[in-house]
Amino acid sequence: MQKNEAVSVSVVKRLPRYYRFLGELLGSGVTRISSRELSERMGLTASQIRQDLNHFGGFGQQGYGYHVEALYSEIGNILGLNHGYKTILVGVGNLGRAIATHISFETKGCRLIGLFDSNPHIIGEMVNDIIISDVRDLERFCREEQPVIAVLCIPKQATRDITQKLIDCGVRAFWNFSHYDIALGHPNVVVENVHLGDSLMTLTYGVKNNLRQTP
Amino acid sequence: MQKNEAVSVSVVKRLPRYYRFLGELLGSGVTRISSRELSERMGLTASQIRQDLNHFGGFGQQGYGYHVEALYSEIGNILGLNHGYKTILVGVGNLGRAIATHISFETKGCRLIGLFDSNPHIIGEMVNDIIISDVRDLERFCREEQPVIAVLCIPKQATRDITQKLIDCGVRAFWNFSHYDIALGHPNVVVENVHLGDSLMTLTYGVKNNLRQTP
Repeated sequence: MQKNEAVSVSVVKRLPRYYRFLGELLGSGVTRISSRELSERMGLTASQIRQDLNHFGGFGQQGYGYHVEALYSEIGNILGLNHGYKTILVGVGNLGRAIATHISFETKGCRLIGLFDSNPHIIGEMVNDIIISDVRDLERFCREEQPVIAVLCIPKQATRDITQKLIDCGVRAFWNFSHYDIALGHPNVVVENVHLGDSLMTLTYGVKNNLRQTP
Repeated sequence: MQKNEAVSVSVVKRLPRYYRFLGELLGSGVTRISSRELSERMGLTASQIRQDLNHFGGFGQQGYGYHVEALYSEIGNILGLNHGYKTILVGVGNLGRAIATHISFETKGCRLIGLFDSNPHIIGEMVNDIIISDVRDLERFCREEQPVIAVLCIPKQATRDITQKLIDCGVRAFWNFSHYDIALGHPNVVVENVHLGDSLMTLTYGVKNNLRQTP
């Protein structure tokens, strides 16, 4: 599957959504589906779907459609979901706790192995079978366990220092819920930002301007 | 400020970020800033910034730069952040609770006035000074209070019915954390989706393919 070298950003952005839809189809016992059917369920055009999936070698067969399980598993491979990248989460406040309990890391190619906070009242507590460690143990832990991904649910002021420490310890990807712009100072790490406040402001803009869909 | 009729999607997507940066500048006592300085801090080109802000009438002055407070307040107006749209949240599990406590709705143009859940163990509890109500009271509440925005932190299966009920009661915008595709069945409401799982899969893809930035 070498074709995915040239895959565009917008196609990659749609992959998780294909993966989710196909997983749901599998779960409800659907074994094959036409691009037309898939397009109706996903709100994309059939030709868009064929184009997207052709990037990855084209799993459809004329007159048969897509083999749901094969396509699901192939997209999972492309996304890297079978890797189980070691992941830690820093900042177990309301948001961090929700992320640690709500997100199924295992099915997203990650394995959550550590939680860190500076609040002495919650250090030692278990969340989702993982003990909350003192953030002062972060570097020792990282040198021993070599996590690849860090989830940051800490305030912007704290993120700068923590990010530098983590990069020094070998962490190379950040799921960043803080407002600190990691990419600006560290162009060589992988960053995926989740700015919930920005998302809500986009919704407010949509309401104010009576848009059908937010931009 | 009539010029914003023709504003492109990508410009609008950047507005919350401008707003955040300008707010931070204000907070640290900066009263004016050049497009070059702003560009360095935001990782955009100066010409990009000038182009973006020109869409809204151009607040910069040659040789002076931007008046931070005026620009901040104007972008806030454009985003609709002074509206205080009545907002309810349905589903006060880990994620809903984190959203209710972590997000400052007031500064994003929203006013959180109701929390709803079906779990009898948490109905009656206070979260962020708002009592959790029984979801069976949702329709009565909506007819009385006329909320405009609903935040949905419930499972996909429940979202279909709840969405229909809310639309029937006049809710016209959804901040959707569920995997239910509201826009597919309801093209006339405003929807902003937050798919945290998709975001994590995008990060995993970035790690696997050694990308600098996620797509």
